[in-house]
Amino acid sequence: MFKTVEWKKTGVVMIDQRLLPEKEVYRTYKDYKGVAGAIKDMVVRGAPAIGVSAAMGVALGAAKIKGKDIKSFKKEFEKITSLLASTRPTAVNLFWGIERMKRVVEENLALSIPELKKRLIEEAQQVYKEDIEINRLIGKHGGSLLKDGATVLTHCNAGALATAGYGTALGVIRGAVEAGKKIAVYADETRPFLQGARLTAWELKKDKIDVTLITDNMAGYIMKKGLIDAIVVGADRIAANGDVANKIGTYSVAVLAREHKIPFYVAAPLSTIDLNIKHGDEIPIEERDSTEVTHMKGRRVAPLGIKVRNPAFDVTPNKLVSAIITEKGVVRNPYKKGLKALFAK
Amino acid sequence: MFKTVEWKKTGVVMIDQRLLPEKEVYRTYKDYKGVAGAIKDMVVRGAPAIGVSAAMGVALGAAKIKGKDIKSFKKEFEKITSLLASTRPTAVNLFWGIERMKRVVEENLALSIPELKKRLIEEAQQVYKEDIEINRLIGKHGGSLLKDGATVLTHCNAGALATAGYGTALGVIRGAVEAGKKIAVYADETRPFLQGARLTAWELKKDKIDVTLITDNMAGYIMKKGLIDAIVVGADRIAANGDVANKIGTYSVAVLAREHKIPFYVAAPLSTIDLNIKHGDEIPIEERDSTEVTHMKGRRVAPLGIKVRNPAFDVTPNKLVSAIITEKGVVRNPYKKGLKALFAK
Repeated sequence: MFKTVEWKKTGVVMIDQRLLPEKEVYRTYKDYKGVAGAIKDMVVRGAPAIGVSAAMGVALGAAKIKGKDIKSFKKEFEKITSLLASTRPTAVNLFWGIERMKRVVEENLALSIPELKKRLIEEAQQVYKEDIEINRLIGKHGGSLLKDGATVLTHCNAGALATAGYGTALGVIRGAVEAGKKIAVYADETRPFLQGARLTAWELKKDKIDVTLITDNMAGYIMKKGLIDAIVVGADRIAANGDVANKIGTYSVAVLAREHKIPFYVAAPLSTIDLNIKHGDEIPIEERDSTEVTHMKGRRVAPLGIKVRNPAFDVTPNKLVSAIITEKGVVRNPYKKGLKALFAK
Repeated sequence: MFKTVEWKKTGVVMIDQRLLPEKEVYRTYKDYKGVAGAIKDMVVRGAPAIGVSAAMGVALGAAKIKGKDIKSFKKEFEKITSLLASTRPTAVNLFWGIERMKRVVEENLALSIPELKKRLIEEAQQVYKEDIEINRLIGKHGGSLLKDGATVLTHCNAGALATAGYGTALGVIRGAVEAGKKIAVYADETRPFLQGARLTAWELKKDKIDVTLITDNMAGYIMKKGLIDAIVVGADRIAANGDVANKIGTYSVAVLAREHKIPFYVAAPLSTIDLNIKHGDEIPIEERDSTEVTHMKGRRVAPLGIKVRNPAFDVTPNKLVSAIITEKGVVRNPYKKGLKALFAK
């Protein structure tokens, strides 16, 4: 099985998701700037995987700090965390992962610099391990929501490739399959970056889970035909009221789901829930380069100089979300109360 | 300005729409089999353009019939029409164009074979001329529905490239612009064949009409932002009850339009209305080759051997259609009555 991101003595190793499914290439990043570039350029993507990668990037950068005293260490450390925090704006896991590493420094100011560096590496590896455990719990809780023989539609890739492993939305599907249920999947190709066609189809096929690929604009047709029993997607940031920011197109899927009375589930770890954000409208939406839309595999498919919009995410209002599946259980409306309670557990 | 399809002494000339916008290549077809292939392979596409091309294909084939007597002529003629009728199943204009040519033969059995061949060529050219006039009338009627300063979303290409010229949905936009209104357009790229990115963006840019390209899954986001005042699309077949078969993804756009209280208009000539079909569910939906989804510009973007669905069209129920714009005026609910009345006019 592939590894999405991994800490090794040689550096942080990532599978280059831009080249899948054609090529399975692993890249090793030996400094934090390389990790930041990998996040920005989407070598690695998916909110939880970005969080893990950011934590590893911080540890990698910290390990190479020259400063011998804590004051100069913290000055260098600040440079590292702010560069990593500047890579992508929407997925809150990025900031969560960095904050967690910052906390390690604040709580261990008494340690020697070498000990502190060691402690940061341990923490990054801990974040990685926890993410896989969390996804397995999400899969266990969410899997119970899927009936045996169900056909599930998913959008983008919230799978092993979007996390340290196992996946959130695909973790729910894997959880159901491991519970002995027969599950079939329809995967939206997810333009413009094609995470569904290139990544979701690829990893489900590797797992021998029945998957059918469609273009995003076929989802309504497939739902109208009565072929879909449930929809499961991941999330990049969930507001305190349950509004969900996720890959562009998720909102359209949610509207279509309600039109066809199909349950719409969001699977995400607590690290994706941002209680500091009241409503989805406050979530910053990244706009990416227009060439993602105008070019495919380097070849132009639109007129030269055409105006383009390329929002990478959209926000699905809580009223369209049937349930949010987390490692601490399943939350339903009213979300404000339910999500807050998760953090008290 | 480009010509989508044209009758010339050398044969039927078409712009190869598969190569746009990168290359502007015109192909000349010297026999009806070539025209049939061009329709099947989508060198030409768009319901009205297919109807015109089919009529020209029939005339081209008929002109080369060797038979000297009407009996053997009709035998050969039948071969020609049945091959052309077998190219694509959904757009009713194909069958309409062929039927119109058949009628010419039935109504002119007294003519000599050379005179009959001449008459068929005249009819094909007449179908071409009428289509442009019809689109200008659609533009006139539909243009009045758009407010000055309106931003319109369209899906696929129902433009000059989908007709003999001027377009149906884009004809409505051109009609509004010619009436002195300022109109901006958002064009869905329209996977898998990218008619929006390759064709709609191209011809609107040529006309200096403000156009912004988005992927299909961004339409909901753009509507939610309040950026769209109206939606105008074409049609491949309209049932007697007003259900509309059009390019895959149209149904999803219609559901999103209602969610955001945006008027959803369908622009089509009477030749697209099939009173023999009671409900949209009876309209045959073409499934095309999976490589349209798995490959882009010849390069694979999905895992080898992945299962794919590729319906080329979907059906939008009449309840989601605000109005149907035809050359004989604008029809609203109840469509059964209104559409029938058009043919009495």
